[in-house]
Amino acid sequence: MAIITLLTDFGTMDSYVGIMKGVILQIHPQADIVDISHGIDPQDVVQAAHELTTYYRYFPQDTVHIVVVDPGVGSERAALAMRSHSQTFVAPDNGVLGLVVKDHPDSEMVRVTNERFFRHPVSRTFHGRDIFAPVAAHLSLGLPMAQLGQPISPDEATILAVPEPRLAPGGSLLGSIVAIDRFGNLITDLDPDTVHRFFPDAEPENILFTIGERVIAGVAETYGAVAHGQPLVLVGSRGCFEFSVNRGSAARLLGAARGDRFTVRAGGPGPGIPV
Amino acid sequence: MAIITLLTDFGTMDSYVGIMKGVILQIHPQADIVDISHGIDPQDVVQAAHELTTYYRYFPQDTVHIVVVDPGVGSERAALAMRSHSQTFVAPDNGVLGLVVKDHPDSEMVRVTNERFFRHPVSRTFHGRDIFAPVAAHLSLGLPMAQLGQPISPDEATILAVPEPRLAPGGSLLGSIVAIDRFGNLITDLDPDTVHRFFPDAEPENILFTIGERVIAGVAETYGAVAHGQPLVLVGSRGCFEFSVNRGSAARLLGAARGDRFTVRAGGPGPGIPV
Amino acid sequence: MAIITLLTDFGTMDSYVGIMKGVILQIHPQADIVDISHGIDPQDVVQAAHELTTYYRYFPQDTVHIVVVDPGVGSERAALAMRSHSQTFVAPDNGVLGLVVKDHPDSEMVRVTNERFFRHPVSRTFHGRDIFAPVAAHLSLGLPMAQLGQPISPDEATILAVPEPRLAPGGSLLGSIVAIDRFGNLITDLDPDTVHRFFPDAEPENILFTIGERVIAGVAETYGAVAHGQPLVLVGSRGCFEFSVNRGSAARLLGAARGDRFTVRAGGPGPGIPV
Repeated sequence: MAIITLLTDFGTMDSYVGIMKGVILQIHPQADIVDISHGIDPQDVVQAAHELTTYYRYFPQDTVHIVVVDPGVGSERAALAMRSHSQTFVAPDNGVLGLVVKDHPDSEMVRVTNERFFRHPVSRTFHGRDIFAPVAAHLSLGLPMAQLGQPISPDEATILAVPEPRLAPGGSLLGSIVAIDRFGNLITDLDPDTVHRFFPDAEPENILFTIGERVIAGVAETYGAVAHGQPLVLVGSRGCFEFSVNRGSAARLLGAARGDRFTVRAGGPGPGIPV
Repeated sequence: MAIITLLTDFGTMDSYVGIMKGVILQIHPQADIVDISHGIDPQDVVQAAHELTTYYRYFPQDTVHIVVVDPGVGSERAALAMRSHSQTFVAPDNGVLGLVVKDHPDSEMVRVTNERFFRHPVSRTFHGRDIFAPVAAHLSLGLPMAQLGQPISPDEATILAVPEPRLAPGGSLLGSIVAIDRFGNLITDLDPDTVHRFFPDAEPENILFTIGERVIAGVAETYGAVAHGQPLVLVGSRGCFEFSVNRGSAARLLGAARGDRFTVRAGGPGPGIPV
Repeated sequence: MAIITLLTDFGTMDSYVGIMKGVILQIHPQADIVDISHGIDPQDVVQAAHELTTYYRYFPQDTVHIVVVDPGVGSERAALAMRSHSQTFVAPDNGVLGLVVKDHPDSEMVRVTNERFFRHPVSRTFHGRDIFAPVAAHLSLGLPMAQLGQPISPDEATILAVPEPRLAPGGSLLGSIVAIDRFGNLITDLDPDTVHRFFPDAEPENILFTIGERVIAGVAETYGAVAHGQPLVLVGSRGCFEFSVNRGSAARLLGAARGDRFTVRAGGPGPGIPV
């Protein structure tokens, strides 16, 4: 069974996704195509990179993951194929694979240049149809990645500009909102291990999260730890801290947007907690 | 062939649905996963229950239906597996299976407690990934439901609070709008049999439907029975009465929302029809 | 492997699409159902016809394509089955197949009347469930089209009213915006061959496209041919001219809507180019 997943910014109003499915099925009629999402904000490579890193690990080995979020379509940016975590990835060389590479620095990567596996003529505007879909279909049939082009080191690929956790001048740890889900949960890039590394003596109940004007003290275990409509921070399903509201939307209550920063610090029993 | 359907309130912008598909396919790579909808209003158990009852009967026997609409995730509400109508259901114990149980009071039900079939560690926020998807995948492989936990009677499960058809003080029958579809059709919980039970002598052309200030007389056979833009009532594809507008939106014309009540009574040739 | 594609205006909030999938799988459990889009504007037959013509050719032969965009449901309009381009189509007789017929005037067509292959009882409002899905499922199992009803000539089917390219009084060629995609690209009904037929001496760089108050000179090769935020015209993935904006939305910048007209003419080195 060959599984191919699709993550794009094509939306589902047009037939772009349907066309990619047709191209895949012409090459590999038994492929099992799995829609992840086509709702990535247009050309938002960072968002796509964060989504990819949340789902790829849950798929069976040898799954082929296609990501087409591609502000540079038609220009000279390359196409990449990559093998990480016993899975295969096909995507533009624009950084969208960057977070998977960060998890697996030993990923094998190839710059895809062998036009034999492209659909012809190759358009200037729809590489999803003409390059990514057919290449992924051939890989799902067992094509060795080496036949697609020259191996490159992941270091040679385009780097994704994501902020690393770091201390702000006042000594608190800076994090970012990397995603907001449909429920309004604010998903961050900080996990308990990172916070522990910076504040080794802090107990979960003494950690202070500041977002905008709001300070939330302590890490909750479940949404029900606070009253309906109240905010909390818990460790979400990605393993990172999330700002949530019990039966409400943290995005709305806290007025937060993707990319916003927040800070974390260890609170004490004394002053210094400006709630 | 093992078919697994998915109904959730996760939306399709995030990768939650994709993650559930990956978890299913890791356990059962040949499963045929069918998206029903991920557009249930967040945490709206009643809406999900009504949708479920419209589609489950159209699937082949032994289909496994997963429903994840779950305001109580992380709290102590149980997970349920159920066997009804030769099909299998997996859902939280929050009433979402209530309308299927109403159709099949002899459903076999199990409270799912055997963690051997869960994904570990079980998060507090994403039981779709950690409980419902893996349990459904195992059931689709033929796991006997009894291995999941203790059988319970459907009476012991959480009851869904849905209004029953009943007579209002003035003698008319009260119904509810249970769903509004993309075309603006208002789907009700009253069917011809129920109306006939209350008004056994009424002919379809003499039934009066009152919604808001508007009275619609008679049951139409097709949309074309009225002019473009005019409202009508017909028996919809669910077998219940629906308020519609010929080539228009009843939701917009009638200003109605889900949950709104309407009344039905038998009209006569004389006075008493305040149109 | 039997592939069945679905194009509807049902949206994905309701369970209509799920019900059609269930009906297909009850008849043909091994069918591979591929969602194209369920986001066609309600009852917009012209839009559906344009989408259909963009994707059908990319699918393997013997794919069965279902289109359910059906303002006339419940009235006397017929259901059609058609064989074109080694593929099979099932749709209402409302013109939605018109552009495929235009590409393949030798298509074989049948008016579907054999109720043996319908689901019963046939509702007045949901022929997707009761006629199109079961008929397509039977065709995907190998049912000869002739068993569905009487053959008709494509000329006897309902004609789709689409404007043909023609010269406007001033001598320029009139085209239409037939689709707007998620990125705001304006997809037209004119391709380079048609423009060449009307203006055989014009070089691509001398062609002038006028939309609203705006004139765009020349055909670009890639989005990057102009600065960010600037408009351009290029040959899109459908093979027709498209108005685009480099990293922006042509729909927004040019204030254009589907159905809008634009003109094309050959510019010269002298006056007459009112930019």
